[in-house]
Amino acid sequence: MRGFDTAEFQSRLMAAQAKMQAEGLGAILLTTEADFRYFTGFLTRFWESPSRPWYLVVPVSGKPIAVIPSIGAVPVGRTWISDIRTWSAPDPDDDGVSLLSETLREIGGPVGVPSQLESHLRMPLHDFDAVKAKCGVEFTHDHGIVASLRSVKSEAEIEKIAKACGIAGRAFDRMGDIAQIGVPLSRVFRDFQRLLLEEGADCVPYISGGAGPGGYMDVISPASDAPLEHGDVLMLDTGAVWDGYFCDYDRNFAIGDASDVIKDAHTKMIDATMAGLEAAKVGARASDVFGAMAALTGGGESAGRLGHGLGMQLTEGLSLTSKDHSELKAGMVITLEPGIEVTPGYFLVHEENIVIRDDGPQRLSRFRGPDIEIL
Amino acid sequence: MRGFDTAEFQSRLMAAQAKMQAEGLGAILLTTEADFRYFTGFLTRFWESPSRPWYLVVPVSGKPIAVIPSIGAVPVGRTWISDIRTWSAPDPDDDGVSLLSETLREIGGPVGVPSQLESHLRMPLHDFDAVKAKCGVEFTHDHGIVASLRSVKSEAEIEKIAKACGIAGRAFDRMGDIAQIGVPLSRVFRDFQRLLLEEGADCVPYISGGAGPGGYMDVISPASDAPLEHGDVLMLDTGAVWDGYFCDYDRNFAIGDASDVIKDAHTKMIDATMAGLEAAKVGARASDVFGAMAALTGGGESAGRLGHGLGMQLTEGLSLTSKDHSELKAGMVITLEPGIEVTPGYFLVHEENIVIRDDGPQRLSRFRGPDIEIL
Repeated sequence: MRGFDTAEFQSRLMAAQAKMQAEGLGAILLTTEADFRYFTGFLTRFWESPSRPWYLVVPVSGKPIAVIPSIGAVPVGRTWISDIRTWSAPDPDDDGVSLLSETLREIGGPVGVPSQLESHLRMPLHDFDAVKAKCGVEFTHDHGIVASLRSVKSEAEIEKIAKACGIAGRAFDRMGDIAQIGVPLSRVFRDFQRLLLEEGADCVPYISGGAGPGGYMDVISPASDAPLEHGDVLMLDTGAVWDGYFCDYDRNFAIGDASDVIKDAHTKMIDATMAGLEAAKVGARASDVFGAMAALTGGGESAGRLGHGLGMQLTEGLSLTSKDHSELKAGMVITLEPGIEVTPGYFLVHEENIVIRDDGPQRLSRFRGPDIEIL
Repeated sequence: MRGFDTAEFQSRLMAAQAKMQAEGLGAILLTTEADFRYFTGFLTRFWESPSRPWYLVVPVSGKPIAVIPSIGAVPVGRTWISDIRTWSAPDPDDDGVSLLSETLREIGGPVGVPSQLESHLRMPLHDFDAVKAKCGVEFTHDHGIVASLRSVKSEAEIEKIAKACGIAGRAFDRMGDIAQIGVPLSRVFRDFQRLLLEEGADCVPYISGGAGPGGYMDVISPASDAPLEHGDVLMLDTGAVWDGYFCDYDRNFAIGDASDVIKDAHTKMIDATMAGLEAAKVGARASDVFGAMAALTGGGESAGRLGHGLGMQLTEGLSLTSKDHSELKAGMVITLEPGIEVTPGYFLVHEENIVIRDDGPQRLSRFRGPDIEIL
């Protein structure tokens, strides 16, 4: 099913309001796509345009209030939100500043704004200062309330992520159709996005990858036009989206054949993944899961982490690092993403997606076995 | 050609530094993908992950300094940037705050941060406050310097946008292959993205559209699964990207046939587009171009504007509204996007892309004629 029942938004709101009450917040001000969507269900790709700010005010009691550009009145009007205040944006004289200030003054503070690691404020700084000065209400941080709620997924959310994982799985099954010796990597990237769409993705906000004989040097650059060669390891990583929820996992493929070094490294990564899976129990810490994987990969933390939370964003919530001691809770969806340095400067990375359950982790991606797939 | 010559980055930097000198800025701090890329050339889809901040410090003299997560060291090392300072991110204890603070203290202030309409700060508010407190340097806004530079495109940038426009043009030519009576709109959206990739897009960060017998109610919602019907008007709007630059234009198609009301409305939109084209001269104001179009469409400004700047972002820079009096300069790339309310609540929207030239505007998209295309 697309979308969510209204009951789901009501329960998200009630959970937020209980925490707001405990922290003494009068309202939370939200400005990013994912936070806005979490409480409203408003799904659009229009946030790709940075021109207009969109505001959601979550009061400590009562339904959220949308303070938005008039172009959004009709679609937001179809969500469960009823109090929708609009202005004609972009307005160089007053781009929603007065409307938002009045709304916050009416609701009352203190106003919590997400301010912690991984957050940002999607509005002009100048307007933020103006709103703070104008509304006469105290501003503070949101005590991490929204991020904490979002980190634990409902069954309906997990279903959407699982669906995205299934789409990517079917696209990976067809890699032999698009990745052969002589095909430029840039074409493989393009065709892989096409496969994801054919298999049912709504859109493909993220893919990355790399290819080389002894692994890849970095996994965040655009593809070059260099053709695949016999003996290359090709890696593709996807963020495909279904109904607003991401999968985020990768696969490695040996082109023609793989050296023993590559085969061993791949097996070692799968061992590390399985160790991470084993450690991913309710009550364990993110750092425990990191430790279980790092023990098998040599502790390589070149990417900064060996996995992360996943959901409405490609990455969100906890990080599997030695420093992140977040506790795993049932309903958290995370990636296990061990990497190995094969030769100095050249890496292999493997990634799977799981959901934490009371009776142990559940696999959302179809886990790859120890042997690297040879195309 | 992909990428840019180093000379292009040098000239962007020199232009920025001349303006910084004039405004008395010691440095500019940049945090968003487009701003970072503008001065470095670093192209990646990795910004889709909100977990890590990326900082660029542009000093009033000398080359920009990248203060970035270690995962970016290799790819940023391949750009023309030489001073690259990294930390292992995400770090819950100190996510680059100390490193950025030291860098800013070393360079000296005042530090300008983009703060105006359409800007945002892509870093946690909490860390921004910590950096300000820690580095002991004065912070202010960037006087719109970066947005102003970015609004005027180089020939190399215009070529990339033109290439993206060409890709979308070829995809629109193939609409008859994917849009027929009985096909769900959601499948048309999916297939259109596939066509864009087949025609050479690197990725498709944005598409939108709508379909209905008398126009569409909103143009920013996801596609429904409702099948196209005889007499529907189908609109598809694309932000396809080539080498980091967007096109942004749309096409309307009549499914089977169009009523006289729809035919007339389409002709009127094309007339408005041509009036906008005529008005889009060097020295004219954004509001003049708006006025020329609005005179023919009945002044409808339901979307808030009748066009906008375009480039590294789907929308950037000026807006064609009655209130935006930005002066058109040679090298600005903009969209002309008139809309008409056909019946109450139902609209048609048309959009083309042009570049402002000293001798008059140049078309980047292949302009549609007055007759709506019938599929």
